[in-house]
Amino acid sequence: MRIAVLGGGVIGLSVAWRLADSGHRVELYDDDPGQGASHAGAGMLAPAGESWFGEDDLTRLGIAGLRQWPDFADRLEAASGVDVGLRREGSLLVGVDDADAATLDQVHDLLGRHGIEAERLTQRELRRIEPAATPGLRRSILLRGDLSVHNRRVVRALLTAADRAGVVVHRTRADLTDGGVAIRPTGDRAGATEPAAPRPADPRLNARPADVVVVAAGAELGAVGGLPDAVASAVRPVKGQILRLRTDPGLIEHTVRGLVRGDPAYVVPRADGELVVGATSEEQGHDVRVTADGVYELLRRGIALVPGLREAELVEAIARARPGTPDNVPLIGPIGDGVVVAAGHYRAGFLLAPITADAIAAYVDGRPAPEAVGCCDPDRFGFAPSRLMSGAANQPAGRKTGKAREAP
Amino acid sequence: MRIAVLGGGVIGLSVAWRLADSGHRVELYDDDPGQGASHAGAGMLAPAGESWFGEDDLTRLGIAGLRQWPDFADRLEAASGVDVGLRREGSLLVGVDDADAATLDQVHDLLGRHGIEAERLTQRELRRIEPAATPGLRRSILLRGDLSVHNRRVVRALLTAADRAGVVVHRTRADLTDGGVAIRPTGDRAGATEPAAPRPADPRLNARPADVVVVAAGAELGAVGGLPDAVASAVRPVKGQILRLRTDPGLIEHTVRGLVRGDPAYVVPRADGELVVGATSEEQGHDVRVTADGVYELLRRGIALVPGLREAELVEAIARARPGTPDNVPLIGPIGDGVVVAAGHYRAGFLLAPITADAIAAYVDGRPAPEAVGCCDPDRFGFAPSRLMSGAANQPAGRKTGKAREAP
Repeated sequence: MRIAVLGGGVIGLSVAWRLADSGHRVELYDDDPGQGASHAGAGMLAPAGESWFGEDDLTRLGIAGLRQWPDFADRLEAASGVDVGLRREGSLLVGVDDADAATLDQVHDLLGRHGIEAERLTQRELRRIEPAATPGLRRSILLRGDLSVHNRRVVRALLTAADRAGVVVHRTRADLTDGGVAIRPTGDRAGATEPAAPRPADPRLNARPADVVVVAAGAELGAVGGLPDAVASAVRPVKGQILRLRTDPGLIEHTVRGLVRGDPAYVVPRADGELVVGATSEEQGHDVRVTADGVYELLRRGIALVPGLREAELVEAIARARPGTPDNVPLIGPIGDGVVVAAGHYRAGFLLAPITADAIAAYVDGRPAPEAVGCCDPDRFGFAPSRLMSGAANQPAGRKTGKAREAP
Repeated sequence: MRIAVLGGGVIGLSVAWRLADSGHRVELYDDDPGQGASHAGAGMLAPAGESWFGEDDLTRLGIAGLRQWPDFADRLEAASGVDVGLRREGSLLVGVDDADAATLDQVHDLLGRHGIEAERLTQRELRRIEPAATPGLRRSILLRGDLSVHNRRVVRALLTAADRAGVVVHRTRADLTDGGVAIRPTGDRAGATEPAAPRPADPRLNARPADVVVVAAGAELGAVGGLPDAVASAVRPVKGQILRLRTDPGLIEHTVRGLVRGDPAYVVPRADGELVVGATSEEQGHDVRVTADGVYELLRRGIALVPGLREAELVEAIARARPGTPDNVPLIGPIGDGVVVAAGHYRAGFLLAPITADAIAAYVDGRPAPEAVGCCDPDRFGFAPSRLMSGAANQPAGRKTGKAREAP
């Protein structure tokens, strides 16, 4: 089938590579592939923790997503020749004060109910396996199954693998149309009443027919023309600021994450000495300026978990808009004849990229999607009067087949 | 006279402009003019404060330097056409806790003895004139006479004014030689046992004769070949990290500086909404990496003085090596026949640039230098066996004339 993918972040690229790899003709549209939220992500692959507490569906989805990663990383490295920096040391979930410890104990119980190995450490045990963690932490829980990857290497690997699998990347934005997509004229924003650039006389000049369109536009979902309102408006930008530090390799070996007197933070180590400290979550629309407050809070919290961060070089502070949804669960599935959505992954784009690609491939090929994706019905926030058609997408989540039409 | 100036920071440029303006033929050598410590400075023109306490000579020098600034700024703006951003709102010297207040009370007394107007404010008065200052500060002292300038505009103005006055700028480093200077081959560091690039067969090819050489190499003084050891080794690099933030203009109108539970900090406002937060002082050699600790401390202290900084955009974090001396007093004066030093200005390069240019012009032309510069004898840390000659420089400070020789 001819497939158009709108969006070249970790989700769009994973979907495009997967579909091309299974024989489809894939074209991907993004004006700057890999430079959105995927460029800023830490690459932490941790299905549950301080910030997901109580979100059962999402925890289950994350666990299923994590399970795919070792194999996904192997295939991606083989297909691209790029080392994606997969780390298997696991993560330490830590709390600074008694209230943090109490919260983490609840997380510990939740993880146990989901069958995740979570081991409470004594202070002596923590000192032995991660001596750079702050002394006197009130709780530390070792999650041996957590992974991490180097986000930018994953993106580079996906670009290479997709290219080798035959994906054609168009460095432009595109909107949905009847029967495919249309390249958006430069400077034109969908929904703008006054286009910045005049549309061409005949919009069909920009039309690209496709059998299936996969909308993977992340935080830009609302800017994609032709989407049903209920879907487009389900995703909002959530600003995240994040820091990249550099020190001698080996300051810490595990991802250290947790609560600093109620405030969440994480520090993800890379093999080369890079440390990623993240991340804020701010409702600031599409404003992605780095602020004094964001950097100060990240440094304060990071130093509270790993004091040795102070000596590290501060290499970069950046901000990006992540695609948030009302329930923090992504939108994955068909929304009508020939249109599939894969968006709204918020803080879990890397964790959920393999399972999302799996699910989208299943929808496209008419196979059942992984059961854990059942909670991701893109239509769950309301019926949209402007939806393209009332097809399979209205079936209950988890039982859809979403057979795409064969030809326009 | 033919004059060579080594170093194109605020000191070298001010000297070069001044000398060219009074009729000398001036050539300036710097591989990247204006991009050293002058690029990072805040431009605060404040002759005394929390960090100068007890340094009487330096306070007197600073007061004399400040007095020259309004006229210097006028002449510089007229000569260059560049607005240097001179601000006359004054500064607020503030302390967060009782110990800070006690220290500032001593500074207040010191300033009084030097005849500087320093007015203790009540909390209500502070709130009225600077509502964005943190509530509940234990001491605030208004220093109406303090000024500030936009450091990068001053550098730009000096480059333009120097150029218009006929200064020739060579974008290369140079060393002292008998009778002038010699251009240093690219990649070659004076004093290195193994030059990175081979020296030319005949070093005289690089020779540039000069009647007077002014060494204004700042923190790079030690790298200038041909200097007496006692002078070269009197200057050490002191790392300073500094932040540039951006917010709506008018968050604060005064420079706010002082002590945060013993830790010094300042916030300098610009007319366009830029805020400069500085500065660390670290003994790190020539390492000028921006560190997590530096940025964290600056943000922490800045926010403690002006909470509204949190909302500001963090535009830049940079570090530079400043030229420190053992007594924090610069080196200004002749060190031998035809060689004059103007270096070691540490944190006061902008404040002291006009008076330094005045003093150097006096030495070159054989006139008496400003009396306040008497403490700046470049030889005060010891006689150097390798000095070029034993001329006027050995006279007691403050009584030198330093007549330069007329021709080589």
